[in-house]
Amino acid sequence: MAEQHIRVAIVGSTGYGGVELIRLLQHHPNVEITSVISSSSSGVPISDGFPHLTNIIKRNLDGVDPAEMAERADLVFTATPSGVSAKLVPQLLEAGLKVVDLSGDFRLKDGAAYEKWYKHDAPDADVLASAVYGLCEIYGEQVREVDFISNPGCYPTATLLGLIPALKAGWIDHSGIIIDAKSGVSGAGRGTSLTTHYAEINENFKAYKVNKHQHIPEIEQVLSQESGQEVTVTFTTHLVPMTRGIMSTMYAPLLGHYSEEDFIQLYREYYKDRPFVRVRSQGIWPSTKEVSGSNFCDIGFAVDERTGRVTVISVIDNVVKGAAGQAIQNLNLMMGWEESLGLAFTPVYP
Amino acid sequence: MAEQHIRVAIVGSTGYGGVELIRLLQHHPNVEITSVISSSSSGVPISDGFPHLTNIIKRNLDGVDPAEMAERADLVFTATPSGVSAKLVPQLLEAGLKVVDLSGDFRLKDGAAYEKWYKHDAPDADVLASAVYGLCEIYGEQVREVDFISNPGCYPTATLLGLIPALKAGWIDHSGIIIDAKSGVSGAGRGTSLTTHYAEINENFKAYKVNKHQHIPEIEQVLSQESGQEVTVTFTTHLVPMTRGIMSTMYAPLLGHYSEEDFIQLYREYYKDRPFVRVRSQGIWPSTKEVSGSNFCDIGFAVDERTGRVTVISVIDNVVKGAAGQAIQNLNLMMGWEESLGLAFTPVYP
Amino acid sequence: MAEQHIRVAIVGSTGYGGVELIRLLQHHPNVEITSVISSSSSGVPISDGFPHLTNIIKRNLDGVDPAEMAERADLVFTATPSGVSAKLVPQLLEAGLKVVDLSGDFRLKDGAAYEKWYKHDAPDADVLASAVYGLCEIYGEQVREVDFISNPGCYPTATLLGLIPALKAGWIDHSGIIIDAKSGVSGAGRGTSLTTHYAEINENFKAYKVNKHQHIPEIEQVLSQESGQEVTVTFTTHLVPMTRGIMSTMYAPLLGHYSEEDFIQLYREYYKDRPFVRVRSQGIWPSTKEVSGSNFCDIGFAVDERTGRVTVISVIDNVVKGAAGQAIQNLNLMMGWEESLGLAFTPVYP
Amino acid sequence: MAEQHIRVAIVGSTGYGGVELIRLLQHHPNVEITSVISSSSSGVPISDGFPHLTNIIKRNLDGVDPAEMAERADLVFTATPSGVSAKLVPQLLEAGLKVVDLSGDFRLKDGAAYEKWYKHDAPDADVLASAVYGLCEIYGEQVREVDFISNPGCYPTATLLGLIPALKAGWIDHSGIIIDAKSGVSGAGRGTSLTTHYAEINENFKAYKVNKHQHIPEIEQVLSQESGQEVTVTFTTHLVPMTRGIMSTMYAPLLGHYSEEDFIQLYREYYKDRPFVRVRSQGIWPSTKEVSGSNFCDIGFAVDERTGRVTVISVIDNVVKGAAGQAIQNLNLMMGWEESLGLAFTPVYP
Repeated sequence: MAEQHIRVAIVGSTGYGGVELIRLLQHHPNVEITSVISSSSSGVPISDGFPHLTNIIKRNLDGVDPAEMAERADLVFTATPSGVSAKLVPQLLEAGLKVVDLSGDFRLKDGAAYEKWYKHDAPDADVLASAVYGLCEIYGEQVREVDFISNPGCYPTATLLGLIPALKAGWIDHSGIIIDAKSGVSGAGRGTSLTTHYAEINENFKAYKVNKHQHIPEIEQVLSQESGQEVTVTFTTHLVPMTRGIMSTMYAPLLGHYSEEDFIQLYREYYKDRPFVRVRSQGIWPSTKEVSGSNFCDIGFAVDERTGRVTVISVIDNVVKGAAGQAIQNLNLMMGWEESLGLAFTPVYP
Repeated sequence: MAEQHIRVAIVGSTGYGGVELIRLLQHHPNVEITSVISSSSSGVPISDGFPHLTNIIKRNLDGVDPAEMAERADLVFTATPSGVSAKLVPQLLEAGLKVVDLSGDFRLKDGAAYEKWYKHDAPDADVLASAVYGLCEIYGEQVREVDFISNPGCYPTATLLGLIPALKAGWIDHSGIIIDAKSGVSGAGRGTSLTTHYAEINENFKAYKVNKHQHIPEIEQVLSQESGQEVTVTFTTHLVPMTRGIMSTMYAPLLGHYSEEDFIQLYREYYKDRPFVRVRSQGIWPSTKEVSGSNFCDIGFAVDERTGRVTVISVIDNVVKGAAGQAIQNLNLMMGWEESLGLAFTPVYP
Repeated sequence: MAEQHIRVAIVGSTGYGGVELIRLLQHHPNVEITSVISSSSSGVPISDGFPHLTNIIKRNLDGVDPAEMAERADLVFTATPSGVSAKLVPQLLEAGLKVVDLSGDFRLKDGAAYEKWYKHDAPDADVLASAVYGLCEIYGEQVREVDFISNPGCYPTATLLGLIPALKAGWIDHSGIIIDAKSGVSGAGRGTSLTTHYAEINENFKAYKVNKHQHIPEIEQVLSQESGQEVTVTFTTHLVPMTRGIMSTMYAPLLGHYSEEDFIQLYREYYKDRPFVRVRSQGIWPSTKEVSGSNFCDIGFAVDERTGRVTVISVIDNVVKGAAGQAIQNLNLMMGWEESLGLAFTPVYP
Repeated sequence: MAEQHIRVAIVGSTGYGGVELIRLLQHHPNVEITSVISSSSSGVPISDGFPHLTNIIKRNLDGVDPAEMAERADLVFTATPSGVSAKLVPQLLEAGLKVVDLSGDFRLKDGAAYEKWYKHDAPDADVLASAVYGLCEIYGEQVREVDFISNPGCYPTATLLGLIPALKAGWIDHSGIIIDAKSGVSGAGRGTSLTTHYAEINENFKAYKVNKHQHIPEIEQVLSQESGQEVTVTFTTHLVPMTRGIMSTMYAPLLGHYSEEDFIQLYREYYKDRPFVRVRSQGIWPSTKEVSGSNFCDIGFAVDERTGRVTVISVIDNVVKGAAGQAIQNLNLMMGWEESLGLAFTPVYP
C-alpha cells in the first residue's frame, strides 16, 4: 500500500528548476517541503532572492549537508548544475535518501559519452547503473520500483515523446531524423551571461550549440534503445525571445503511406492512459503557450505526400514537463501514487 | 453553516476573464462548473477557441439563457462587456441566481456618472443599489451577506488597496493624489484592434485614455467614501509590452512626518488578516512578475523627505486579482468559506 | 549612362512594406517620393495612421489611379496584397511606368501553380512572362535590363541565398532538403487577427501553414532552375514573438566530404561582389538581431560528420531584405546605379 | 567658416552608447571614425563582440592612450562609465582634443552633489567648470562656442524638453512637479546582472532607485536654472520589458487656465526651429516606438480641468536622443554644421 505522505528537500533552490519545484509542490497534497537548500546562499530567507515567495515559504536556505538532509527528509530533488550531482547523489543514496536528480549527470549510461559531451568526470559506475531514466510516459513502469530517478532533459522530453510511437511502429526511417528545437530563455538558467542579457536576446532569434548540445546523446540513447537500432540524429537548438516553452519540430522520412489521421490514432492509442500527453486533431498544431505553466506535452502532425516525410511538432513548458513537473510525476510514480497527483495545473493562458 | 458545494455558470467564457475563471476554478474544491456560456460561439467545444483547455474541459459552449442557467447553476459569473451585464444581470437575479459581475456596469452608484464614463444606458436603479462592491480586503464583511457582487476593476483594485490605509489614517492629502498606472496588454481583452496588434505594441510603451479612463470615477467613489471627503484624482493609464500585470505608482503629499517604516507598519496592521496583500520591506518595491498568475496584491513605499511626498507602488495580476481571482475570492466570502479557498496559487516565476 | 534621379510612387503605403519603403527612401540620394497611395485611406495625411512619420512626410495619401501615377512618377512600388497586384500592375506597365511589385502575384511562372497556392486568379500570361524575379544576388544581371521586377518573398530570400551556392556546386543532395523557417510577427502584415493579437502570440511560439505556405513553390521554382533538377522541399514556418527577423535553418545531405571551412570559402567566393551577404566564420552562426533594420543576409554553417548533413543558417530582416530593402536594391540595379545606393544601413543593435 | 571634416575616436566602443555612435556616424557625411577604443578588449576586432558590424567596421579595438588619440583624432566621444570620464577627460582636453562626454561625470556643476549621488570623486573643478551642458534644444547657442560638451542623461533629456517651455512661461507650479519615468532595458548598459537577466525582466515591470536616481540632481539643476527658482522634483524610474525607449509622464499643477491647445501652441513656438522636437496634436500622445532608432523627442499634453493639473508626455529613444544621437547633434553644433547633419533618421516602425 502506498504511503500517504513524504518529506522532501530541494537542493538548488535558487535556480529556476528548484523554485519551480517549490511552486508546484505547494499544491501537492502528500508532500511537505522540509528543507530548501542552496550551496551559495545558505542562511538567508529564500524570499530574499525570490520575493514572489514572500509569505508562501518563510524558510531560510539550508546548506548542503547529506546527513542533515537524511534527518529532515525522505527524498531529495537535486536541481543542481552538471558535475555537482555526480558527486552529491551517491552520498544522498548512501544516507538512505530517495533521489530524483534533475541534472544531466545520470542520464547517459555510457560514462565516456558523458565525459565527452558534458566535460566533467563521469559519476561512479555502480550509482550510474542504478539510475532509472524517468521519462514517465515511456518508462513509467520501471519508475515504480526504484529509489533513484534521473529526470530527463527538457529537449529530450519534448523530442522523445514526439518520436517514439512512430519509431516503434516502424513508420519512420530511423536514419533520417532531423530535429529543429527551440527553447525559451529560462532554459539557460539563472546564471547571468551576455547571451541571456535582456537587450541581447530580446527581439532576437539565435541558434546555439549546433550539433554540439549535450542532449544529443541522451536522445540517441533512448531512440536506439526503443528502436533496437543505432539512431543518430541531426539536432539544432535555438533560443526564442520568451521565458518559457520548448518546441521540437521533427522531420523523418516515412516508411509507408501513413496519413495524418493514422498518426493521430497511433499516438492517441499509445498515450491513451497517460494524462499529460495531448494529441492534436488533424490540421492543428500545438503552440508553446498552450502548455505554459502545466505538465502537458502536446503533439501535432503534418504529413507531406509530396516529399514522403512527416513533420511532428511537440511542445512542453521546459520548466514544468521539462524539469520540475516531470520530477514530481516521477515522485508520484515512485511512491505508487496517481501520476497526476498535485500536478493537474491548467495552462496559464494568455 | 456554510454550504459545501456550488454549481456555477460562466458567461463570457471566450474572453480572458472567463477563461481565467475556468483555469482557477479547476482547483477549487467546492465548485463545479456546470455551464460555460458565450453569446457568439455557442454549440462548439470551448477547446476549439482555447486549445490549452483540451482534455481539461470538454464541454460545448452554451448560449445565453437565464432560465437554463437557473436550472443548471446556483451562481453565475458574468464576464461580459460593459453594457451587456446591465441588461443580463437583472434577469439572472430575477431567476434566483447569485451573481458575481466582472463588467463595470454595477460599480458606479451614480447612474448618470456611469452613462457619462461608459457611454451606455445605466442599469436599473434598484438592481444597481443592490450591488455590493466586492473589493474584498476593504468590504469583505459586507460581501458575506449578499447574493450580488460587483467585482472591482483591475486598475481600481491595485490603486485602492495601495491608497486606502494611508488615506483613512489621515497621513496623505486627499486633494493631491496622482496615479500613474501601467497595464499588460491582456487588460484590453481578446477583441482584435490595431492597438493590440502585436507589431504595434511590442517594443512600445504608450499612454492611452489620459484623464478619461472609466476607472477614474470608480476610484474616486471609493476614496471619497473611505475618506469622508470628495476626492478627485489625476489618473494616467499606459500599456506595457507584456501580457499580464498592473502597476499603480501613486504619489501623494504627506500630512506629517511619516517614515517608510511607519507606512510598512500601518499597512501590515491594516491588512494583517488578509491573505492576499503582502507589504514589502523597507527599500524594496514589488514588480509585476512577483504576483503573476496569483491573487496577490504586493505593495511597497518610498518616502521622499526632500519633497514631502510618499510614493506607493502596488502590483497585481490584472487577470487574477484584477478580475477572475477576486471574483472567486468574492464567491468564497459570499458562501462563508475561507477567503483563500482554492485560490492559494504561488506566482509563476520566472 | 545612368539617370541620376527618379520619381517614385508607393501603392500600399499603409502596410508595413510600404511604410518601410518610405523610411528607407528618405535616405536615398536619387529618389523622390512623389505619391503615397492607399486604396483604403486616401485623402488623409499619412502621419495620421503612422505618427512616427510626423514632420518627415507631410503628404496626404492618394487614391489608386494609374493615369495620375504616370503623371507624377516614373516608377511604382506595389506593396499590395496578393490578388490586387495581379490586376493593377498590367495597368501601370501599360501607362508606361516601371514597376517593382512586392506582392507574390508575379513570382510563380506557372499560372496554375499560382492559382493553387494563392487561391486567386493568375495574372495575364504575357505580363507574367515579362516579370523578372528580383533576387538580386542571384539574378542581378537580368534585373539590369528590365522595367518590371517581381520582388522575392521574405522566406524565399533567406532560404535561396542560403542554399543556392551549395546546390549549384553539387555539394548537397537536392532531394533531401528540409527548411525550418521562423519569422517575426511583422511578416503577417498590419491587418488585425487573433493570430497577431498581442496577448495570443506574445510569449508564444507556433507553427503555421505547415507544408502549405505559398512560398514553397517559389523556393522550389528557383532551386529547380538553379540546379537543373526538379527540387521538392519540406518547408515549415513558425511565428517568433518578436517584430522583425527571419531565420531559415536548412538541412541537406552532403554529397561528399566538405568541411565548414569549405562551405565558408565557397560562399564567400560566390558572394564576393555582393555587398549585402555576409558569411560568418567557422563555429559562429548569425542571429536575427545582427541584421535588424538593414539589408544584410548573414549566413553560417555547421557540418555534422556523424550524420553526413550540413546545416545552413540564414537570417534577414523580413521587412528590409525580405521586402522594402530588396525592392530598392532592385530599383538601383534597374537604374544602373550602385547596388547599395542609399541602402547601406548599419543594423540597429541592440 | 565651418570645417568640413573631422576625425573622431570613440572610447567605450563595446558599450551600447559607443556602438550606437558607430551606427549613426556611418551615415554622417563629415565624420571619419579613426579609432574605436575599449579598455577591456583592445587588440581584437570590434566585430568579434558585435557581429552586426561585420564588414562595416573592420577595425581592431584600440587601448586607452590619450597621446595616440590626439594623433589620430580631432574629437573624442567618451562613452565611459561614471568615474572613468572624470579622470580621462582632463587628459584628453590637455592633449588638445575636443570632447563630447556621454558619462554623467561633468553634468552636475556642484562637485559635492556629484559625490553624493554618483559615489565617485568629483572631477577637477576647473575642468568641470569648463564643461557645457549639451541639451541642444535649450543650450544650442552655448554649444556653438566650446570644445568640451557634457552630453545630457537619457531621463533628463526626455524630462527637461517636456517641462522647460511651460516652466519658463510660468504656466506650472515649480514646487509640484512629479515625474514618472519609464525606460527600456538597454538603458542599463551591456554589463550583465540579475536585474537585466532575460528571464527576470521579460514580462515584468518594475520600479528601481525610487527617489534615488542620479538623474534627479541633473534635472533639478537645469529646472532651477531655467526657472530662476530652486526646483525639487519627485522622480520615479521604472524598467519596461523592451529594449529601447524612454517615456517621461510628468504632472504639474497649473498656475492659470490653459488648454491643451494652448500648450501645443506654446511648445510648437518654443521649438519652432529645432528639427528634433515634434509636438503632437490635441488628444494624441506619443508612444516610444514612434521615435525608435531616431533622434526625435515627441511631446503630447493632457489638461485635466477637474484637478487643475497638466500631464506632459515626452518620449525619446534612450540610445539615440538620450545618448549617441544627441552627442552627434552636439558635435554638429560645435562644428558649426547644421544641427541635423547625418542624423535625420526616420524612426524604425514597426
